Amino acid sequence: MQAVNFGEKLNEINELWSPRIVASMNDHELKLTRIQGEFEWHSHSDTDEVFIVLSGEMLMDFRDSPVPLKKGEMIVVPAGTEHRPVADEECQILLIEKKGTSNSGDQPGTRAGTVGSWA
Amino acid sequence: MQAVNFGEKLNEINELWSPRIVASMNDHELKLTRIQGEFEWHSHSDTDEVFIVLSGEMLMDFRDSPVPLKKGEMIVVPAGTEHRPVADEECQILLIEKKGTSNSGDQPGTRAGTVGSWA
Repeated sequence: MQAVNFGEKLNEINELWSPRIVASMNDHELKLTRIQGEFEWHSHSDTDEVFIVLSGEMLMDFRDSPVPLKKGEMIVVPAGTEHRPVADEECQILLIEKKGTSNSGDQPGTRAGTVGSWA
Repeated sequence: MQAVNFGEKLNEINELWSPRIVASMNDHELKLTRIQGEFEWHSHSDTDEVFIVLSGEMLMDFRDSPVPLKKGEMIVVPAGTEHRPVADEECQILLIEKKGTSNSGDQPGTRAGTVGSWA
């Protein structure tokens, strides 16, 4: 067993919107990603998705009421719920979701990033 | 959907070693806890367990090689692996594990804390 240092791992990620797996637990994965700008609307029919903000701030845009998030905050996006992460400045995030989840969800995703892994 | 602020929630926890549920995702729960001192050796036969250090530092003691952890670091304790969290000073942690997991694992736990919930 070994510790994972989020800052060190994030420094190895050069691309925006490209979640990289840092750990697996049960049938779930934890992924680090750097975001900036506006992602596309999408949903995941088979998994809830947790966003934990490690640095910066972002908006989780929903069709009805967007939710602002900053460092030290998290949100659960329920399965099947359309959402769109938005960040004016760079924001660093820990994602938790079922194994094999695509960042563009059930949509093909014109901006689906390559998902790499350390774990 | 709403944001969860870890700091605000931690301020509402007065007891050490008493994980409180802040969110559910799929069949898992996210819990906040404050620890200080030495917990008892235990293991969870049916779930991996993620520890994310939100403030302070701790040692995840294993029978073979203990792993030091500090703010911004995490570890996955695999199911069935004996472990014991230790912290000289107060340390604040986000736990992720399957729903219904006891903090003292498969052992009865003389120090099993009351597990409360906001979620």
